[in-house]
Formats: sequence, C-alpha cells, structure tokens
Amino acid sequence: MNIRLFTAFFLIVMLSIPVMAFSDDSSFLMPSLPPIPADNSLTAEKIKLGKSLFFDPRLSKSNWISCATCHNPTMGFADGLPRALGHKMSVGPRNTPTVLNSAFLRLQFWDGRAKSLEEQALGPIEAPVEMAAKLSDVIDKLKSIEGYTVLFNNAFPADKPAITKKNLAKAISAYERTLITTNSAFDRYLRGDRDAISKEAADGFRSFKKLGCSGCHNGPVFSDGELHRAKIPGSTDSGLYNVTKKEEDKYKFRTPILRNISLTGPYMHDGSVNTLNGAVKLMGKTMLDEDIPSKTLKNIVAFLRTLRGEHPGRTVPTLPWK
Amino acid sequence: MNIRLFTAFFLIVMLSIPVMAFSDDSSFLMPSLPPIPADNSLTAEKIKLGKSLFFDPRLSKSNWISCATCHNPTMGFADGLPRALGHKMSVGPRNTPTVLNSAFLRLQFWDGRAKSLEEQALGPIEAPVEMAAKLSDVIDKLKSIEGYTVLFNNAFPADKPAITKKNLAKAISAYERTLITTNSAFDRYLRGDRDAISKEAADGFRSFKKLGCSGCHNGPVFSDGELHRAKIPGSTDSGLYNVTKKEEDKYKFRTPILRNISLTGPYMHDGSVNTLNGAVKLMGKTMLDEDIPSKTLKNIVAFLRTLRGEHPGRTVPTLPWK
Repeated sequence: MNIRLFTAFFLIVMLSIPVMAFSDDSSFLMPSLPPIPADNSLTAEKIKLGKSLFFDPRLSKSNWISCATCHNPTMGFADGLPRALGHKMSVGPRNTPTVLNSAFLRLQFWDGRAKSLEEQALGPIEAPVEMAAKLSDVIDKLKSIEGYTVLFNNAFPADKPAITKKNLAKAISAYERTLITTNSAFDRYLRGDRDAISKEAADGFRSFKKLGCSGCHNGPVFSDGELHRAKIPGSTDSGLYNVTKKEEDKYKFRTPILRNISLTGPYMHDGSVNTLNGAVKLMGKTMLDEDIPSKTLKNIVAFLRTLRGEHPGRTVPTLPWK
Repeated sequence: MNIRLFTAFFLIVMLSIPVMAFSDDSSFLMPSLPPIPADNSLTAEKIKLGKSLFFDPRLSKSNWISCATCHNPTMGFADGLPRALGHKMSVGPRNTPTVLNSAFLRLQFWDGRAKSLEEQALGPIEAPVEMAAKLSDVIDKLKSIEGYTVLFNNAFPADKPAITKKNLAKAISAYERTLITTNSAFDRYLRGDRDAISKEAADGFRSFKKLGCSGCHNGPVFSDGELHRAKIPGSTDSGLYNVTKKEEDKYKFRTPILRNISLTGPYMHDGSVNTLNGAVKLMGKTMLDEDIPSKTLKNIVAFLRTLRGEHPGRTVPTLPWK
C-alpha cells in the first residue's frame, strides 16, 4: 500500500469514529423541518397568515385570548401553569402542552384524539374552557378585517372564498410547523462535539436509554407519538377513554415531547409535578417500576436540560387592523 | 458682492426654505429618546430586566396575565377592546391606553393620577380588575425564581436586596422608555420629504392645526400631557374627580397620545367610539364645538394614519425559569 492510499484510508477511518460512536443515537437528532402533509404545503404566505392568527385574540369569544396566551412564546410556547386557564379564567382539565416541535407528532392533544395539527388547531377556539368562540363567528370577524382578506387571499389564491374554517386550521398549522428548536447542546453533542454537554448529562443520557425511558421517549422530539397507559397517582383523568369510551383506552395518553422540557413545567397531564426531578422519579416508578437512585435522577435531569434548542419564534407580528 | 459670496448666500437661503416652511411644526418631531429621570438612568441591564417583567404573567395573582396581555405588542401595545379585561375577565372602567411613547408624558393613566411611569407601573399589578396580585406576593415569587435574582442584581448592583417593589417599578419603566416609535411617514414629511404623506394627509394636518385640535394635541406625541375637561356623551366617568373628589377635577382626563392611533382603537376613555372618523368628529363637537365637514374629517384621519411609526418591540423575551 503506498503512503497516499494509506493516508486517505487513515483519514476516512478517523473521521468516521465520531459518526460511528453515535450511530445508534442518530434517530434522536433534530431535523430542521418536520413532516409536511401533502395537502398543506408550507408557503411563506401561509406561515405569515398563520402567525398572525396564532397571536390574534380576536379568535376568542372575549377578543382577549389568543393561541399565544396559553402557548406563550415567552414560556416555551406553554403557560407555566399546572392546568390551562381559559375563558373567564376557568381551569381546564389538563396541562398546556408546548407547541414547539409538536409538528413531529402524529397524534395531537394529551389524549391523542386529533390526528394532525390541522385537526387540532380549531379545537381550543371552540372549547368552552379555552377560547369559547363559535367558529362561524370567528370566520365572520376575520372577514370584517380588511387585512385578513389580503392575507388569506395571498395564502390560498385558488380558494374562493379564502377565509374558511379549513384554511384557518391550515394556516395555523403551517405556522406551527416552523416552531422547531434546532441546535440544542444535545444535538451538538450527537453531532460529535463531546464538550457540548457535561459528563453528568452524558451519563444521564446513557441511563435514560438503559433504564428504558427511551422505550417511549424516542425519535427527534423524544416521543414515539403513541398512546400509552399512564395512571398518575392522584389523577382521575381517564385519558382517551373520555372520548372513545373504550375500556382499552382507559388512562391512555400520548407520550409527551421532552425537547425544551426545562422551559415547560409543571409536568404530567395534570401539571401535578413541579420539578423535572420529581417528574423523572414519578415516571421511573409508574412506567418502569424503578426507584431511580438520586444520583442517576440528577444526571437524567442534567441530560434533559441539554434538550433546550434555539428559540424559533421570538418576534411577534403586528396584527391587521380594520 | 463677489460671486462666491453670492453663491454661498444663495445656497444658504435655498437650503433653509424647507426648514423655514416647517419651522413651526418642528415641535411635533419625534425624538428617538424620551426624557429620562435623574433617579432612574436607562441601562441595558434595567431594560433587559424590565422587558422580562413586562411579559411575565407571574406578576399577576393568576400567573396568567402579564402587562403585555393588555399592552399587547401585536396590537400597538394596547388590546383592541372597548374597556380593559383583567382578573377573571372582569371588565375594567376604561380603555387600555398604549404604552408606546407614553414615556413622553408627565402624567400617566387616563385621569393622570400618576406622576411618572414609575408611579404608574405598580398600579395594574394590584388593581383587582387587572392583575389582582399583592405586591409583596409578587416580590416573594420573583425571589423564588433564580433567573430574576441574577437579572435584578445586574440591573441594580448597588441595592441589597435588589428585588424590591421600587426596583420592579424602575425596571418596567426603563423598558417602557424604549418603546418609542420613530420615523413615521409624518416625521419624514416634517423633515422635508414632501412625498412621504398624501396631499389629503397634508391638508388634514393643516386643518388639525387650524381647527384647534393641536391646542391640546401638541408636542412629539400629539399630547400636551395635561388634564382637560372632556365630557363624552353617554359616559358617567368623572375622571380625576373619582380620585381627588375636587369639583374642579370633574370629567378631567389627560390628553391621549395620537401617535400610532390607527393601531389602538377603539377610542375615548370608555372605548365607545369604534372608528377614527367617529373619534375626530366627536372631539370636534365636544371639545371645539365644531361640526367638522366630512371632507375635512377624512383628511384629518388620513393625517392621523401617517403617525404610525416603526415598531420598537417586536421581539419577546424568554422568561427566566426556576
């Protein structure tokens, strides 16, 4: 073997080591775009409209509550409350899930009852304990705001009329598909920057897999997107059963996203756990029947904190006015 | 006179014409900074802290309502409602005034009962129909959030403790002093760009002055910042009298800001007027005893629309978490 060939071979092997070392974990890497459905292509016009709608309190009965009230961009697109507040400050049944990276999931809502963002988007607008509006009233309101006629026509040029419930859902979903948090310390670590996270966090990630947390919490957002039976002590919430009344759906909840989890406490579907430490401990006991030792818990929490990515939506729009 | 001297003289005269033509109006020009009080210097650290506080719902009893809920950056730092909503969605007595450029005013609140932004800032936090919190509870909450200890210590390095009611007010006020909207079409017009606004708007500005609107609506934010008797038909609000119980304060309200007025409807202290046209008409009748002809009204509204400046606060912070 001549020296050139040897050098080339040596370089290829050396450069491959980081990739090989992490090859099992590449499924956890965060892509910059989520899946885009064939019938709702992602266009700049739809994103612009959807962003305006997401921040517009006129989508609620009171004209005071927008999607962003509970999915607050200053709090990781969640609200920091145990359970959601809504119309007249009534307390909803569950904790507000973050919108960040939710576009990676097949099922939406804690109980997974919606099969797409499009199906999810209109729910909270009509829910009496959320925005409490009638969709037909919202459509009438939007039609009365000149700026929205322009925005909808630009986003849906083929549709006459363009301002419809379906397009409202499509535009909001399009905006939500841009709320992706990339380049977290953990992603940099996976890509080979071994100093991007602490030794504790790296140990925590290993324990996370070894203990079996990654059985459900896997893929780019650390959720398999599937329903699992999760009976939280003290909670009487029956999960998907409330919707289907099927015995097999009792206590079934969709695996929540762990990306940016340090920003989106409190935890569990009922917001009953205040700290990440408490959440990991409870999940260990409830889902894995493990009493996780305190040092391991600490490491797993250190790992979870590395999942905070770059914030995608720090600018707010100026809403169209009459 | 030699030719050089003549040329110089000619040039000076010619270059002065635009300045001379607008010289009476230079008092309407928007500066880029408002007055800064001697005891609350504007520092980057205070602005950063104040911005976080302004957007933080944990300043309210419910942990759901922030300053930005009603002073919403997507709606010209107002809320688009006739009268403010607050805790449990109770309806407040008055329309939410914009925070934009409010730092130029000596008196704060519709009835001018606060003598500075610092004095104003804490009012809504404790008002039962607004954020409904106890300030002492808010201070305790802020102390329990690690990130705020850092932010307060950076902003007020000489104060031990740094997290106090006074510093809370100072930081919020510092942030508010950055919410200045410069470079509106009207400002560009005043600076000599005659095409920056339409002929109608320029006519409207002349009528605005000739009719006497500028008697009260003057200075950079089109408000003298003073109290005037303004009895709106249908309103039973006694203005500053509610606070002082002095007969001379009956129906006294502070002249509102006209900058960005096209973004901050509805109008009047009770939000009873939906359109700018209606607002100008009503003010003509009530304050000037004039039935303003419809063409003049239209021109004045065209002028008022040119007062929309560049948006200073389109980015939102990520709030500190425990």
